Amino acid sequence: MRCLKKASAKEGLELSDAPVPTPNEGEVLVRVTHAGICGTDVHIYNWDRWSQRRIKPPVITGHEFVGVVEEWGSEVDGLQKGQRVSAEGHIACGHCRYCRTGNAHICEKVRIIGIDRDGCFAEYLVVPQENIWPVDERIRNEHAAVFDPLGNAMHTVMSESVAGKTVLITGAGAIGLFAIPIARHMGAEKIIVSEPNESRRAIAEKLSPDLCIDTTKEDMLEVIHREVDPTGVDVLLEMSGHPKGFADGLRACRGGGTAVLLGIPAEPLAIDWAEDVIFKALKIVGVNGRRMFDTWYQSSRFLVQHGKEIDPILTHEFDFKDYEKGFDLLRKGQAGKVLLKV
Amino acid sequence: MRCLKKASAKEGLELSDAPVPTPNEGEVLVRVTHAGICGTDVHIYNWDRWSQRRIKPPVITGHEFVGVVEEWGSEVDGLQKGQRVSAEGHIACGHCRYCRTGNAHICEKVRIIGIDRDGCFAEYLVVPQENIWPVDERIRNEHAAVFDPLGNAMHTVMSESVAGKTVLITGAGAIGLFAIPIARHMGAEKIIVSEPNESRRAIAEKLSPDLCIDTTKEDMLEVIHREVDPTGVDVLLEMSGHPKGFADGLRACRGGGTAVLLGIPAEPLAIDWAEDVIFKALKIVGVNGRRMFDTWYQSSRFLVQHGKEIDPILTHEFDFKDYEKGFDLLRKGQAGKVLLKV
Amino acid sequence: MRCLKKASAKEGLELSDAPVPTPNEGEVLVRVTHAGICGTDVHIYNWDRWSQRRIKPPVITGHEFVGVVEEWGSEVDGLQKGQRVSAEGHIACGHCRYCRTGNAHICEKVRIIGIDRDGCFAEYLVVPQENIWPVDERIRNEHAAVFDPLGNAMHTVMSESVAGKTVLITGAGAIGLFAIPIARHMGAEKIIVSEPNESRRAIAEKLSPDLCIDTTKEDMLEVIHREVDPTGVDVLLEMSGHPKGFADGLRACRGGGTAVLLGIPAEPLAIDWAEDVIFKALKIVGVNGRRMFDTWYQSSRFLVQHGKEIDPILTHEFDFKDYEKGFDLLRKGQAGKVLLKV
Amino acid sequence: MRCLKKASAKEGLELSDAPVPTPNEGEVLVRVTHAGICGTDVHIYNWDRWSQRRIKPPVITGHEFVGVVEEWGSEVDGLQKGQRVSAEGHIACGHCRYCRTGNAHICEKVRIIGIDRDGCFAEYLVVPQENIWPVDERIRNEHAAVFDPLGNAMHTVMSESVAGKTVLITGAGAIGLFAIPIARHMGAEKIIVSEPNESRRAIAEKLSPDLCIDTTKEDMLEVIHREVDPTGVDVLLEMSGHPKGFADGLRACRGGGTAVLLGIPAEPLAIDWAEDVIFKALKIVGVNGRRMFDTWYQSSRFLVQHGKEIDPILTHEFDFKDYEKGFDLLRKGQAGKVLLKV
Repeated sequence: MRCLKKASAKEGLELSDAPVPTPNEGEVLVRVTHAGICGTDVHIYNWDRWSQRRIKPPVITGHEFVGVVEEWGSEVDGLQKGQRVSAEGHIACGHCRYCRTGNAHICEKVRIIGIDRDGCFAEYLVVPQENIWPVDERIRNEHAAVFDPLGNAMHTVMSESVAGKTVLITGAGAIGLFAIPIARHMGAEKIIVSEPNESRRAIAEKLSPDLCIDTTKEDMLEVIHREVDPTGVDVLLEMSGHPKGFADGLRACRGGGTAVLLGIPAEPLAIDWAEDVIFKALKIVGVNGRRMFDTWYQSSRFLVQHGKEIDPILTHEFDFKDYEKGFDLLRKGQAGKVLLKV
Repeated sequence: MRCLKKASAKEGLELSDAPVPTPNEGEVLVRVTHAGICGTDVHIYNWDRWSQRRIKPPVITGHEFVGVVEEWGSEVDGLQKGQRVSAEGHIACGHCRYCRTGNAHICEKVRIIGIDRDGCFAEYLVVPQENIWPVDERIRNEHAAVFDPLGNAMHTVMSESVAGKTVLITGAGAIGLFAIPIARHMGAEKIIVSEPNESRRAIAEKLSPDLCIDTTKEDMLEVIHREVDPTGVDVLLEMSGHPKGFADGLRACRGGGTAVLLGIPAEPLAIDWAEDVIFKALKIVGVNGRRMFDTWYQSSRFLVQHGKEIDPILTHEFDFKDYEKGFDLLRKGQAGKVLLKV
Repeated sequence: MRCLKKASAKEGLELSDAPVPTPNEGEVLVRVTHAGICGTDVHIYNWDRWSQRRIKPPVITGHEFVGVVEEWGSEVDGLQKGQRVSAEGHIACGHCRYCRTGNAHICEKVRIIGIDRDGCFAEYLVVPQENIWPVDERIRNEHAAVFDPLGNAMHTVMSESVAGKTVLITGAGAIGLFAIPIARHMGAEKIIVSEPNESRRAIAEKLSPDLCIDTTKEDMLEVIHREVDPTGVDVLLEMSGHPKGFADGLRACRGGGTAVLLGIPAEPLAIDWAEDVIFKALKIVGVNGRRMFDTWYQSSRFLVQHGKEIDPILTHEFDFKDYEKGFDLLRKGQAGKVLLKV
Repeated sequence: MRCLKKASAKEGLELSDAPVPTPNEGEVLVRVTHAGICGTDVHIYNWDRWSQRRIKPPVITGHEFVGVVEEWGSEVDGLQKGQRVSAEGHIACGHCRYCRTGNAHICEKVRIIGIDRDGCFAEYLVVPQENIWPVDERIRNEHAAVFDPLGNAMHTVMSESVAGKTVLITGAGAIGLFAIPIARHMGAEKIIVSEPNESRRAIAEKLSPDLCIDTTKEDMLEVIHREVDPTGVDVLLEMSGHPKGFADGLRACRGGGTAVLLGIPAEPLAIDWAEDVIFKALKIVGVNGRRMFDTWYQSSRFLVQHGKEIDPILTHEFDFKDYEKGFDLLRKGQAGKVLLKV
């Protein structure tokens, strides 16, 4: 089968051939139809510091996908050949305390497809049945392919009630963008987005946030204090991981507010804990992955009901063999979500 | 009347005379019998950077006390001359959104006794009736005098359920010390205290935590992973504000754990957000003051039931005129809580 | 001034004259412009069992209103003559444990305007400044007049997160009707209304719930299991107080769901606790009044943003002197909310 | 092997022989050493209405036990022959929405050992590995044998924070009794027990609650209002399922309090929803089974730390063949927890 491989320890991915994998006991073989390129895939492509420590080539990359069930090993039941499925890419151990208490998303022995084992940038992949997510028939393939990053956004939004609240989203990468319609349908009263990149801001605008701040031209805090609330926003969804977005975002929260953090700072960052956290009784919530499987149920309902609203985020779709175009756009910051048709 | 005044913009406090204040409408005149010296009072004594910005001499300092009702202005009812009372020292505006929604502890226009208006290091002080806390007859004066700092500890412990959990307290100043018996009676399964200062650690030991770590000799994380739980503690109560206690404390939290922050770092501090907060889905809660008046009800019940357990923390009691001895001990880190008998 | 009085212990209200009241210390005199008729006012009109026990004639009735500040007593500040205001009608004691801990809505010594003291069916009324709610200039008078019942709906909806959930509202009286747009904007994924009365159902339909069940013709549970979810709804908002709505509503909740109860059953009701509550781990939340003043902030934001959506509920407006028409419609169940122009 | 069977549809159990079961794939064969008799087992013995509907004889009864691993089927790993284990008796389907979202305790397809499949009143039983709970070496066998009912008590206590609160436990059967030391160590400030049965009350007294009310002689509400708090208790743990305990328990809750319900009323019960739930903003929480596996981790820590405190509840231990003695005591209400030594 065709696949995209990190073949060796250097920049780039390689379009190559590999044998179709065989599902073991409890595993399902899925024929991939659409896959999404994640920021993580771009890191792996770039062979940055994180990738060099984490990835052991050769490995087939990719973890966002939709496909159809092709075959399965023993001890799998309830599936049908041809059934559409996506899958949670975090394969939890099932035995640790986190897994046994409904917190598999922070399993300490987690293995991730496309990182620790072969992923979905291929015609076929195998995943354990526990990870399989049957796709509701009312959800289009292009939407089902992004269950994973949409789920990150869903998990972040659902980590604090946004009902009736003002919500600031710092960073309009794909996950930050998904958070806009999600936050609105989960009850946010006012949504403010901040993003320095023009292309991303243009996509954000199409999702009709109440305010979209160009941080290269305006001071975010000043705008928020003037146009939203002089005491700040109720909830921050930090999606940038960028030192400035991060620090300004915390500063923008009002007393008694909440900051939910998904964006990953590359380096340790200093903040003014006294003023920005302690005196104003801020709550901060770190978010990792997707809750298994609450997030998936929530995302599925959302896509059934409001799926078309994410269309402006799905900016590009390429044939599998043209993957370089997709990676190129993402590396230049000129795309929302890029899909590959396998 | 005798009082302790920050008379002018320099180090030290001055024992001086002042007229007995007159209670205005809605205010109560209290004859102080016992007062506690807070870390904040030491800052004011030292005339550090924070004090220089915040304090406008002359002002009578002090905000922890118990006394008896002497007299009151119009529009006050339900009190009796001679009745024992303490008081919440944060005088909230009553009109802002925080005050109107049960969050007066983060009122943006708060005025604090002993800081923004005359305090309790005096034979008499006046406070609004809303702030008065009638003292249960079963509570001794020495215990009632520390309702304020005990309340800080109570607010911190109650900011996250500790029932059945392992709890790390970084920093054994008076508030950290109070947190030990409080956390135990609120259900903590195991209490670990870390403190570099030997005098404070000696007091902590008397309160029988499960583990007391001398951070000058041992690596806190190593001890916790070895003797408590290889995945870390469930709850951190950060009481030191010290860069090392702070960073190590966060690192010591297990995945899905909670860090409650009361200690105030003097400078911005950097932490590894990716590893210490986001990937492990940590929750962080900033704590300011005492909830009005939930914290007071909780503290009152605690003192009635378990008051004697805080006795080891009340290390010194001096006559008012010997206040220098108290400040001296505290500046040297050789005392728990120092009381002044007025 | 003109006013509507429960003049004596019998059915009906009396249009009569009374002196304009004088605001005491801390009180505000408001000139009423619009008032709403509440179900409670209808009970008082009808002189039912509850009224006979609770009301001591003579008393001016009414508690839902908007008006303008006319004058005030001493110790009132920050208001301006002519400023538009509504008010929380529950006058809490301010001293009990509930009041001191942010739970004034369940103050045990509460006095209610229009019930325990003169109300708003009059050209003027006085209320304590603590209860005054300044009206945002973007809110129309007709909307500001219903802050009170809209607040009941808001408090009910906000008692459990509805984000992404299926929500059943049993009973489409005014409060049940208000709950429809509120639940939608607070994130409900699907809203189902059940109501036997045709007029009310007709109003509900105008608010576009996902499903509106005529319980005189269809079995509510069957419809829900067939068209919404075979396991039941996530959240019940019980607004009827009716034995059948109540029992069927609880039965309609899915395992792990929540039932929020605002409708007041006239008599004790039996339910199957084993099947309907315990085995399915249901959570039940009793709701009383409005949270002071969280609910008011939430309602204000809602009216600013989505006020026009409640227009179909405001079915009638009469001149003050034609109050009998309004009471007549409400007694026949032929109106949503009836306003009186004073 | 020897076993206790519900052999046919009539009162009583039968000591008989059965082949040692064979573990299938994913299953573990356990040699039972100690088993506990549950109230449910007594219902099955009595062949009451519930049993007649639910139980399909022949079936080996019993679901509370400790034993040692003897053998296992394929796909089981991480266990050792001779290792001590207990097990969660609710075998969840693993596929339904409840199971996939951390709510396996309300799985709609749950099968229970000793009820829907052979149980632990036998020399050997098989359970799926997912249900196996390895026993900490510091826990005695007699304590490990009651992980299941202790877990019910733990789940109930942990359903609402009891820290610093007054807690009423209505009903001192085994689970109500276990709740006494659990509530104390989870932070309850004051524990009140009500129980009409003298033997049970005698056991309760040994666990040192703050108050133990004989409801045959005293009016529970009067005692609570007089000796605990005139406004009622903060938390009710309803463990009786008895109409009077249930109704009085709800009435005893203070405004803003919480009632957690575990006891199962045999018939629908009427309560005064207006006064007892809605006006006082009560929260009610239905509790079923044990959370998998939070409850088990909590129970394990509790038994390690405080296990000896449950000794007064373990009133009797019989050899397996003398099971009739145990059932006889329980049917007469003359025992706490009865253990059988297998």
